[in-house]
Amino acid sequence: MRCPRARVIDITHAIPPQDVRTGALVLRDALVHMPPGVHLAVVDPGVGASGAAARRAVAIRTAEQARLLVGPDNGLLALAAARFGGAAESADIGASPERLQPVSATFHGRDIFAPVAAALADGAALADVGSPLPVSSLRELPLPRAQLREAALLAHVLRIDRFGNLALDASGAELTRAGIAGGAQIAVGVGGREHVAAAVTAFADAPEGELLIYVDSTGGAALAVNGGSAAARLEASPGDELVLRAAPGANG
Amino acid sequence: MRCPRARVIDITHAIPPQDVRTGALVLRDALVHMPPGVHLAVVDPGVGASGAAARRAVAIRTAEQARLLVGPDNGLLALAAARFGGAAESADIGASPERLQPVSATFHGRDIFAPVAAALADGAALADVGSPLPVSSLRELPLPRAQLREAALLAHVLRIDRFGNLALDASGAELTRAGIAGGAQIAVGVGGREHVAAAVTAFADAPEGELLIYVDSTGGAALAVNGGSAAARLEASPGDELVLRAAPGANG
Amino acid sequence: MRCPRARVIDITHAIPPQDVRTGALVLRDALVHMPPGVHLAVVDPGVGASGAAARRAVAIRTAEQARLLVGPDNGLLALAAARFGGAAESADIGASPERLQPVSATFHGRDIFAPVAAALADGAALADVGSPLPVSSLRELPLPRAQLREAALLAHVLRIDRFGNLALDASGAELTRAGIAGGAQIAVGVGGREHVAAAVTAFADAPEGELLIYVDSTGGAALAVNGGSAAARLEASPGDELVLRAAPGANG
Repeated sequence: MRCPRARVIDITHAIPPQDVRTGALVLRDALVHMPPGVHLAVVDPGVGASGAAARRAVAIRTAEQARLLVGPDNGLLALAAARFGGAAESADIGASPERLQPVSATFHGRDIFAPVAAALADGAALADVGSPLPVSSLRELPLPRAQLREAALLAHVLRIDRFGNLALDASGAELTRAGIAGGAQIAVGVGGREHVAAAVTAFADAPEGELLIYVDSTGGAALAVNGGSAAARLEASPGDELVLRAAPGANG
Repeated sequence: MRCPRARVIDITHAIPPQDVRTGALVLRDALVHMPPGVHLAVVDPGVGASGAAARRAVAIRTAEQARLLVGPDNGLLALAAARFGGAAESADIGASPERLQPVSATFHGRDIFAPVAAALADGAALADVGSPLPVSSLRELPLPRAQLREAALLAHVLRIDRFGNLALDASGAELTRAGIAGGAQIAVGVGGREHVAAAVTAFADAPEGELLIYVDSTGGAALAVNGGSAAARLEASPGDELVLRAAPGANG
Repeated sequence: MRCPRARVIDITHAIPPQDVRTGALVLRDALVHMPPGVHLAVVDPGVGASGAAARRAVAIRTAEQARLLVGPDNGLLALAAARFGGAAESADIGASPERLQPVSATFHGRDIFAPVAAALADGAALADVGSPLPVSSLRELPLPRAQLREAALLAHVLRIDRFGNLALDASGAELTRAGIAGGAQIAVGVGGREHVAAAVTAFADAPEGELLIYVDSTGGAALAVNGGSAAARLEASPGDELVLRAAPGANG
């Protein structure tokens, strides 16, 4: 064992397969509540690819709190790095002296990321585990951005959690600016259909089985069904576009 | 970190969404085999609700073994508390000095329960983490009760585990009193249909693919399919009523 | 607690119900990367059965590295034992002095395997926790074997992981001998239908959504869909037979 005294905290094993964006969002939102340390993440559909499809394996030190992030350079680490002031230093660890050899083509979590993370937890420096990489070359993770249109908010589904709640790319402040305020009835257009949601604070503020729009625990706008699944109700998927509009007549 | 020396044991992350009763049953049955400590549980559909729908956040000390339970006051902790002699002391922790601020409306597990549990693990008293609450005001969790009718047992599905086994609200002793004994064929009526189950001790005592009734590892009656799912076979859900009857002719 | 200083590492809770073979394969492949210690595994459809269907509860010490394996004697431990030189010593722990009493009929993981594993972790010898058992009497786990036919490889699905990747019973070397080499198009016959797969090194070497055949991280042949599920694409299940054949014309 490379670092037997390491304390390991499992955040989740429930990121949907190949869903780099959900992994990046969950990592960003979880790390704020985790103690500083070495944070290993793997959602890695491009593992082992060659040529133009190749992605690098990286370790990153953040500007704030000197958090160490280890994983594929496919955007998975980008939102977490940004949350801690951005990358201050990074290394390409694809040929790390810490890697297990031979490195398999499809499981760098085991063969590169975990051994490198253990070495960092044991006190190794980035320079020890890889070769220097300009932080400007790290992949970013573009996210959709909600837009305020006249009397409407054009938003997108960022991710869906295991309850079927839909996290949107709008902030609570943007909801307010769009006139979506507590108590109002909101028209939600998605996939050519129109739904009505109550703008409330918590799930149980809406009647059982009813759609609601609220500000979730990360500060973003979200849709849920009290006691049910908004993803199933709206037949929505990550990336889908929604139009949100205060609907004064909808509760008539 | 509030209590870095705490040893954390994850019991499960597989309670069905919003299913307070399954959470309460699993917590009760697991804690008997867990060392005394601080036990945090969250199944919390009423989180953050206001007005009549509001539920309190509580910490409880049990009469036996002084176990500390932390979670929503919605019945989730009630069966575990009862298993350890009932609540000896309790506190309302909704405005705990330990809480993260601002408290989100939908994730008290992160913002209230976990910080309070960490403080208790670190040696804080209930009086330090909340305001006194009469134990008589704690929410109970009503469960259905099997009833012995003439030559039949009227029972209900308490919960369904990940194998599709159906835990019933009858004890092994009640099965015996209803004439449901080892080796017998049992008629199981549910949802207007009749099935035949073998009364046996273990799964493999019934033929592969056959329905069986047995006393499970908690001492309660249960239905299973050897190598399959009783929930799928019987199309049963938690709360469903079943009529169990010794069926001497059913094996003819 | 029997051994409070034990460090517990959870490998997985995601073995499909009753799937002894998947459990045995995952255990074998994981333990190579785990530190020596006591390895407890439970996939136990025969738990508590009596008579001819009864299976023993066992603890095994391996010839290499003296790994200690604890679980049901149904083949679950067999592949891991073989990977470490085979069983050097074994004990029947069904009536272990360490067991919880009364032993339930359906949860020996709780009542026998976990207490025995804790005792072993605490330094107990096999002779302390059970009665001697000839290693020659331990159950083996027969696996299908791929066969090279003229210009074709007859293989079988060993297991399906959570991504829908199909692990086959052929090695990378057997693929090569069958003429299935990098860059080639491969005809894959299964269930009366024919598919075309690209023989590549990693998922992203095939176009998004395309079937591929590769050598997985355990050194075995496997089928996947880049960004999707090969199990869904091929409607394949564990045990299914496949015919793999180099198809020079298939990319025409």
